[in-house]
Amino acid sequence: MPLTADWIALDWGTSNMRAWAMGADNSVLARGDSAKGMGQLSPSEFEPALLDIVEQWLDIQRVTPVIGCGMVGARQGWIEAEYAKTPTPPIATAPTRAPAADRRISVFILPGVSQSAPPDVMRGEETQIAGYVAAHGTSGILCLPGTHSKWVEIADGRIARFRTAMTGEIFALLAEKSVLRHSVGTGEWSNDGFASGVSEALGDPEIVTKLFSIRAGSLLEGTSPQASRSRLSGLLIGSELAGTIDYWRGKEVALIGASQLSTLYRKALAIAGVSARLFDAEEMTLAGLCAARAALEDAQ
Amino acid sequence: MPLTADWIALDWGTSNMRAWAMGADNSVLARGDSAKGMGQLSPSEFEPALLDIVEQWLDIQRVTPVIGCGMVGARQGWIEAEYAKTPTPPIATAPTRAPAADRRISVFILPGVSQSAPPDVMRGEETQIAGYVAAHGTSGILCLPGTHSKWVEIADGRIARFRTAMTGEIFALLAEKSVLRHSVGTGEWSNDGFASGVSEALGDPEIVTKLFSIRAGSLLEGTSPQASRSRLSGLLIGSELAGTIDYWRGKEVALIGASQLSTLYRKALAIAGVSARLFDAEEMTLAGLCAARAALEDAQ
Repeated sequence: MPLTADWIALDWGTSNMRAWAMGADNSVLARGDSAKGMGQLSPSEFEPALLDIVEQWLDIQRVTPVIGCGMVGARQGWIEAEYAKTPTPPIATAPTRAPAADRRISVFILPGVSQSAPPDVMRGEETQIAGYVAAHGTSGILCLPGTHSKWVEIADGRIARFRTAMTGEIFALLAEKSVLRHSVGTGEWSNDGFASGVSEALGDPEIVTKLFSIRAGSLLEGTSPQASRSRLSGLLIGSELAGTIDYWRGKEVALIGASQLSTLYRKALAIAGVSARLFDAEEMTLAGLCAARAALEDAQ
Repeated sequence: MPLTADWIALDWGTSNMRAWAMGADNSVLARGDSAKGMGQLSPSEFEPALLDIVEQWLDIQRVTPVIGCGMVGARQGWIEAEYAKTPTPPIATAPTRAPAADRRISVFILPGVSQSAPPDVMRGEETQIAGYVAAHGTSGILCLPGTHSKWVEIADGRIARFRTAMTGEIFALLAEKSVLRHSVGTGEWSNDGFASGVSEALGDPEIVTKLFSIRAGSLLEGTSPQASRSRLSGLLIGSELAGTIDYWRGKEVALIGASQLSTLYRKALAIAGVSARLFDAEEMTLAGLCAARAALEDAQ
């Protein structure tokens, strides 16, 4: 007998989609991945792209709820799920129903979170934050490293404030598209190079006049590609830490992300004298979607 | 009778080539441009690309000297012209002879300048600096804004120290390739947006956690593309100024560059309370190449 899902959890971002077939007890029965991120689809392709992955889990006899988060709820996504404004619980309002032609699914999209001063937005991270709040605590400092890292202060189960750092995107642009691409490798890592970059940027977070020294160091001193790449990463993460010092100073930080990147952030925070605990991003996403599913059932 | 050059001045960078037919009195008889920059040519294409532009100015009866500067002298260029080390006169050593098959030309490439601490290099700008020193003064603070801006302290006719800021390249990457491309326009300019970015970064030069507010501001507040673009430019130039304060504080700055960009830098410096004079980049390049030509004649 083929597997059927009680409900489907969905994390649909700009560059990829992940879906999980969930049991009634919130156990994960199966999972699916797709490279069809929001960024490359036109509106008519959203529903077929979802069905490609989840159709195998549907029961023809009933309507299966799909609870989704991420850029799927952006203005250019399937349907806009309006932002909840800080201070706010991570999942504040009812999800938005997305129009689906297939009668076997009913698709709900969770809202993102916005902040007016300074202006900032998130979509998807609020669900991981909801998972953290449900499982680990109603206050604390969270950092979700990634293409666009998020720093979040949680108080009384609410997102009190947050800040986005474009660290991951800037790193990729500099390492792949700028003149520094000639100097930074893709291979091994240098802990010393990373640590020196972090320390330098913690002391002086201005990077515009520092980055070219990576290129010059490789030209004049033969600095290795690994050391150059690690120093670039250290300078950017160090600069991010300098810009978020009002979040982490004197605190412990909960890092929610991919383990390799979270480990780097933990090293950088250790240089700043701050300890951090690591939490798995997928686990937090699922915990958040389970909390949203429970809230939806209560409301129905 | 076709025009013939006494000598040829050449500025050959990564993305384009400019050449001038010069009279014996250093008057400009003609000029030529080519989009064939070093970055897109293989070694066998260097001489033909040069001849495409300058052949019309050659006299079959004699050998015409070509004096060149820029990335043509890099390791990946026509021939490597080794760096002179700071402190150094902007044109310190004899130019390097490049191998040319055509007997009508004899090609000389000027050396770049390097610095060991912090490591830094320039190629091409030293010639503009030589032009400034020859025509305008043997001491002062120079800024050459561009893809890679150079800040230079001149003392006793020598380059005492310099620093490169990747401002122009970072701006282009963020405006064209990052998520900010959705928010920054290409059209009109906002002086207020620029000034607020400059002031913000002069006060706190960390940009990694500030840039995303440009995206969020356009999403949440409908900030115009012009204001967003101008603020991005202001944040980056303000950060550059914060990183070079030990050059310009309490000084007047000589700006050598394209007039539109130099005018922006003058505005940014004015916000920091510093005055600046503008000098035309092409004029300085030619003055530098003329000085190199005179030195070469003296040596022969």
